[in-house]
Amino acid sequence: MYKIRVYKKDLDYTYCLGVFPVVELLQKMSKVVDQVLLSSEGAQNGGVDEIMQLCEDNQIPYSINDHKIKLLAPKENTYAIAVLDKYQMQLNAEKKHLVLVEPRNMGNLGTIIRTMVAFGFYDLAIIRPAADIFDPKVISSTMGALFQARIQYYNSLSDYVEKHGTVSGKKRELYTFTIDDAKDIREVDFKAKGKDENYALVFGNEGAGLSAEDAALGTRVMIPQVGDVDSLNLSIAVGVVLWETVRK
Amino acid sequence: MYKIRVYKKDLDYTYCLGVFPVVELLQKMSKVVDQVLLSSEGAQNGGVDEIMQLCEDNQIPYSINDHKIKLLAPKENTYAIAVLDKYQMQLNAEKKHLVLVEPRNMGNLGTIIRTMVAFGFYDLAIIRPAADIFDPKVISSTMGALFQARIQYYNSLSDYVEKHGTVSGKKRELYTFTIDDAKDIREVDFKAKGKDENYALVFGNEGAGLSAEDAALGTRVMIPQVGDVDSLNLSIAVGVVLWETVRK
Repeated sequence: MYKIRVYKKDLDYTYCLGVFPVVELLQKMSKVVDQVLLSSEGAQNGGVDEIMQLCEDNQIPYSINDHKIKLLAPKENTYAIAVLDKYQMQLNAEKKHLVLVEPRNMGNLGTIIRTMVAFGFYDLAIIRPAADIFDPKVISSTMGALFQARIQYYNSLSDYVEKHGTVSGKKRELYTFTIDDAKDIREVDFKAKGKDENYALVFGNEGAGLSAEDAALGTRVMIPQVGDVDSLNLSIAVGVVLWETVRK
Repeated sequence: MYKIRVYKKDLDYTYCLGVFPVVELLQKMSKVVDQVLLSSEGAQNGGVDEIMQLCEDNQIPYSINDHKIKLLAPKENTYAIAVLDKYQMQLNAEKKHLVLVEPRNMGNLGTIIRTMVAFGFYDLAIIRPAADIFDPKVISSTMGALFQARIQYYNSLSDYVEKHGTVSGKKRELYTFTIDDAKDIREVDFKAKGKDENYALVFGNEGAGLSAEDAALGTRVMIPQVGDVDSLNLSIAVGVVLWETVRK
């Protein structure tokens, strides 16, 4: 079993904190779990019972260890932590993709992963430099949705396009989200006849948005705003767009 | 001028951190500003120049004070902090409202305030117990949108309904967001003829959602989800619904 220490990016393993995400992990991807730590305070929690049962079913060791839980989650009242291997994933080349260019905020990244799964997107390309999807803060804010997603890092948007610019021999439609000189999202028909349904939605980061060069790689699209706030939070913008793709 | 100390909920004043939010504050609500602190590292920043100009125009004292900035924002690289009075606001009884029941997460609350202003909602009712809108973390995540909003706390949803259940003699429509036994949001016409356009959108909190009792006070509405994640993050759900009200 791995030595339990405070998380760092260069560790080969990571931590999933909280009863709900741990249950999701054990149900969706038990094979990457090394061990589970439980808090003595969680003894009456129904979710903790479910975790113990799932550990037994999958022959995963678990133990009560308040000391290590305090070390990994000093501020919160956490009943369960799973220790898991970081694993490699590959995008499904035949599906629609979400693409985030240089996302830096871990809370936003986790919330976006949770939202994409809620709206039926399972493939996420991330352009570096970017936040670490295996950081415990990201895993927590996905609420376990991470374990249903396929996520791959690329060094540039052009690298991604080189690899995934076509789907089954047809051009993959790219929609690049930006503020200037862009089409109103209400006018985009994501399911138009004759168009590939396995498009990619491309978003820039929290600070700078997409560069003009990256935006030019696809059809420029915007979410019109009514008030005079500068822009939407990235996770909200992505949420609204994902909803638009399913609502029609 | 106020004594600069670490923020606590019972202080009569609070702090607005960051160049962009401070500019918004000085433009929208300079009369509540006590003083502005600047970092010596921000001397080359165009936004800092704008802050100094706005302070001079409004006769607000400002000073370079790296020590106090470090005290209030120990982790980040912050160029400007405004000290401001907490102020009372009143909902506009003639407008559409957003209602949050017992929101606890400060990041979510701030993001929601930013999003409502972006989509043309300016009135927010908050049902206690709830996060403190004047906590610097909330103010930061509103990106200054707080200073355009009108926000009032109530002790219960019934208290709110008692006060705002009618608009100009007509019943105010309440839409209560929930998962069970609810109407698909795509079937709701927020601008139907003969209906009051100054409706209220009511959301429960991050953990428990709306109680059955609260949900029954209005028309139950849901956002259909495709994947099998348990639910959307609260700020994403609110963002999608606010977008729905403006998109049509």
